[in-house]
Amino acid sequence: MEKKTLLTHCKDAPGLISKVTNICYKHQLNIIHNNEFVDNTSGHFFMRTELHGYFNDSILLEELDQALPQGASRKLVGANRKRIVIMVTKEAHCLGDILMKSYDGSLNVDIAAVVGNYDTLQSLTEKFDIPYHYISHIGLDREEHEKKMLEVIDQYNADYLVLAKFMRVLTPSFVENYRHKIINIHHSFLPAFIGARPYQQAYDRGVKIIGATAHFVTNDLDEGPIIKQDVIPVDHNFSARDMAQAGRDVEKSVLSKALNKVVNDHVFVMGNKTVIL
Amino acid sequence: MEKKTLLTHCKDAPGLISKVTNICYKHQLNIIHNNEFVDNTSGHFFMRTELHGYFNDSILLEELDQALPQGASRKLVGANRKRIVIMVTKEAHCLGDILMKSYDGSLNVDIAAVVGNYDTLQSLTEKFDIPYHYISHIGLDREEHEKKMLEVIDQYNADYLVLAKFMRVLTPSFVENYRHKIINIHHSFLPAFIGARPYQQAYDRGVKIIGATAHFVTNDLDEGPIIKQDVIPVDHNFSARDMAQAGRDVEKSVLSKALNKVVNDHVFVMGNKTVIL
Amino acid sequence: MEKKTLLTHCKDAPGLISKVTNICYKHQLNIIHNNEFVDNTSGHFFMRTELHGYFNDSILLEELDQALPQGASRKLVGANRKRIVIMVTKEAHCLGDILMKSYDGSLNVDIAAVVGNYDTLQSLTEKFDIPYHYISHIGLDREEHEKKMLEVIDQYNADYLVLAKFMRVLTPSFVENYRHKIINIHHSFLPAFIGARPYQQAYDRGVKIIGATAHFVTNDLDEGPIIKQDVIPVDHNFSARDMAQAGRDVEKSVLSKALNKVVNDHVFVMGNKTVIL
Amino acid sequence: MEKKTLLTHCKDAPGLISKVTNICYKHQLNIIHNNEFVDNTSGHFFMRTELHGYFNDSILLEELDQALPQGASRKLVGANRKRIVIMVTKEAHCLGDILMKSYDGSLNVDIAAVVGNYDTLQSLTEKFDIPYHYISHIGLDREEHEKKMLEVIDQYNADYLVLAKFMRVLTPSFVENYRHKIINIHHSFLPAFIGARPYQQAYDRGVKIIGATAHFVTNDLDEGPIIKQDVIPVDHNFSARDMAQAGRDVEKSVLSKALNKVVNDHVFVMGNKTVIL
Repeated sequence: MEKKTLLTHCKDAPGLISKVTNICYKHQLNIIHNNEFVDNTSGHFFMRTELHGYFNDSILLEELDQALPQGASRKLVGANRKRIVIMVTKEAHCLGDILMKSYDGSLNVDIAAVVGNYDTLQSLTEKFDIPYHYISHIGLDREEHEKKMLEVIDQYNADYLVLAKFMRVLTPSFVENYRHKIINIHHSFLPAFIGARPYQQAYDRGVKIIGATAHFVTNDLDEGPIIKQDVIPVDHNFSARDMAQAGRDVEKSVLSKALNKVVNDHVFVMGNKTVIL
Repeated sequence: MEKKTLLTHCKDAPGLISKVTNICYKHQLNIIHNNEFVDNTSGHFFMRTELHGYFNDSILLEELDQALPQGASRKLVGANRKRIVIMVTKEAHCLGDILMKSYDGSLNVDIAAVVGNYDTLQSLTEKFDIPYHYISHIGLDREEHEKKMLEVIDQYNADYLVLAKFMRVLTPSFVENYRHKIINIHHSFLPAFIGARPYQQAYDRGVKIIGATAHFVTNDLDEGPIIKQDVIPVDHNFSARDMAQAGRDVEKSVLSKALNKVVNDHVFVMGNKTVIL
Repeated sequence: MEKKTLLTHCKDAPGLISKVTNICYKHQLNIIHNNEFVDNTSGHFFMRTELHGYFNDSILLEELDQALPQGASRKLVGANRKRIVIMVTKEAHCLGDILMKSYDGSLNVDIAAVVGNYDTLQSLTEKFDIPYHYISHIGLDREEHEKKMLEVIDQYNADYLVLAKFMRVLTPSFVENYRHKIINIHHSFLPAFIGARPYQQAYDRGVKIIGATAHFVTNDLDEGPIIKQDVIPVDHNFSARDMAQAGRDVEKSVLSKALNKVVNDHVFVMGNKTVIL
Repeated sequence: MEKKTLLTHCKDAPGLISKVTNICYKHQLNIIHNNEFVDNTSGHFFMRTELHGYFNDSILLEELDQALPQGASRKLVGANRKRIVIMVTKEAHCLGDILMKSYDGSLNVDIAAVVGNYDTLQSLTEKFDIPYHYISHIGLDREEHEKKMLEVIDQYNADYLVLAKFMRVLTPSFVENYRHKIINIHHSFLPAFIGARPYQQAYDRGVKIIGATAHFVTNDLDEGPIIKQDVIPVDHNFSARDMAQAGRDVEKSVLSKALNKVVNDHVFVMGNKTVIL
């Protein structure tokens, strides 16, 4: 007996829940959890079904294809750990958090490698016996640098790339290579303080709350589908530097919660939004 | 076209989601939301299905009865506002909050009447043109007092009784009369500080968080199924009185959130717990 | 014996805490709470001192003037309730919340009057025996409308004007009349979603958190000093309308928390920020 | 120029803030932050003063001794990192979090050593080049085991012992050795679910929130002064095991926040409570 997750999305139509759960029932698959959502704006249907039993994948998927509307997407995903490659610059907190959570089992990922444009985080990474690739951007133009990184990254065949405070903007062609597979942590509560130095902006504006946003990377800077956001209170006692320091806690917490949802197949992308089932 | 909510619970069995959603599909009812839960400890299945369409209630329920296991419970509930009777003593904050939220439409209830063992809250209630019954307990034993209150309450045919800081313990026979229909707000984060003067207990213990708990009333004092809990931070600056004052905000917020779930038919009782779908 | 609060702010200098507390000590005033803050960016000092004892205001203030640097501001404020005038349009939730909290004593204000550009909230206001002035803007230009409102408002001699979902922009001259005395609730987590229809903007962006901001009104639209912010989580299930509905709870909570700080003399304005002691 | 923190507590008396800040002023010490608290129940005064300047410790303390009431406690603490020894059993999450935060600088501690009654966490500890002492309790009575541990621990001359999920009860004599210097993380929102298996208790009770409590260890089991508490929401979907898993996040967060307050000298013990300035 195995556990698998069926991910279905398509144009909405009558009877979709009934049709899909019927097929699972005929296959004697037990539904552990089922969540569905219809987006009334776009008329789109999304369903996530956790199943337990003996799977005949190809027959199951074929029957689903016949039952679902034209153009439907359905995917049957096993329970194995997702492979990720992490990209970093110099800050340790998000990388350290993912390393530790992968180590202690609270985050369901295998870290295939870490790629950094500085060597600052090499020794931290290697403590956990994970290969670190130091690929400096110095003296390279953006395309050359990315080409060198992709040569390394591509070989790991990762399910997701995680930008754990990678402080460089990626080119459209890099992003296209890993469409909806790159997860970034942005150090502000988007869409407030888009762009550089968000903590300084927050300090200057005198806000009483700061936050962080984990999102899929698209080619609209800071505009990709948001997966998770969270905030913490601040007050007049916080300098911009204190805000940045306090923000680190919320950054790593938001990133690891977003990752947790993504790698356990809870997240659908719908235009510039996410549906999390 | 109408909106109704189908509430199903029964012993778990294969294919329940499929069977119920099939019947809805055949009735050309559109599923707006569907949530289900299987409690693995007790092997019980719960499902809440929001439907939209033309209803033939009796045929629908008959078909469900045939499809569901022996002893299943299924109920089809319309979207009309629930009627509540509120019981109070002297404190205004929870009553005031429900009065205002019923008035401005943010809480989906009709307040049929308020019953108080003091007249303190009479003028507040009557501002909103709601009958207030002042039934003093003075000079009466508990049974006599409850008998007088029940004579009044029963005539309103309420869906739920809400104890909005009603500071007297109800007898088992009163509670049995309104089984799983009495909602109480307890001024602590249960099971911490069971019993009297919880804020004094919290102060004496030096806790850093206080809370409130909304629960169905059963005959185990402070032990009924919990619907909603929430907390707020406190610190050494708070006297017991400050805690009580701060606690009022969380009490009323928790009570109205619990009510909101109950009156919109999201809450199942399962033994001494709730399942909220 | 009385309770008063001393509010001091001035350019920072050595020994300010010592000097002020010394003077209080010599006056045999007991310090109940003392909070102070130095803003390192501007080099400004702020202190709030809650005092208990027999006050000789004029001598105390004179001694403080001699001890403090040139240009210092010091104010001794009694414990009496502040008078507010509330301005509204059509939405009941913020007004209702303030009415109820003033009624039950949890907000330390006297509501002198409510002024609305519609009559929607007249009956709610009058339940609490508070005068309601319906001053329609229809057929008037902005200046004419404000002139009519100011004629009414000015006569109440209010400590603060509270914009409890007053949906019109005030002119600079109106704002200047009540400099740092107008408190607004903005229905977004500023600076995200500045301007109109923030909930629709939030929906379109697919955010996972929405919020509200209470701030002093200045002549930079949505840019006045922020007093309080808070947020609530939302998800893909929320339509723009659901967000607006859910947002009402956080709007009224943020507004009343901000008011609570302001009317109890905890809030200093420092440029476009607040210092809350 | 140095930064030091002055910690004062004594019986309350008139003019204490004035007297202490006067002395600092005469020493030309700049007050960066000053917080004070008077406990009205016990009549006790507490003050924490962050100072910057050139210190003559012995003269400063002598002058304070003359100014303060008989029996006053005053302590001048430098800004150096505190030394801690961590005691563990088998669970990695709290230890891992402290190791990482010490490594990346977000927690101001030096970890002198880790002592475990299993060897499970040895390799994790040694990744960070910190000595791990595996001292099994098997075959030893409680006193013998503690004696062996103390032989190791004592040599490190630690400022604090941190029980990072050390799952054994300490004897009174061990606790007396490190009075108010042992910090424990308890896996429940005390005083709810005192004792063993709190997550199972929480599951059985059907609570909607679980929490964790960091406290100083005294000889009343689970009754020491609480430093920090926090909670997370749970619902019917959580098994006891899911609650324990979710609880780990809040356990480590609460423990590290408590440690942060303690090692930066913000925490006073007052009977069975803490005052955090």
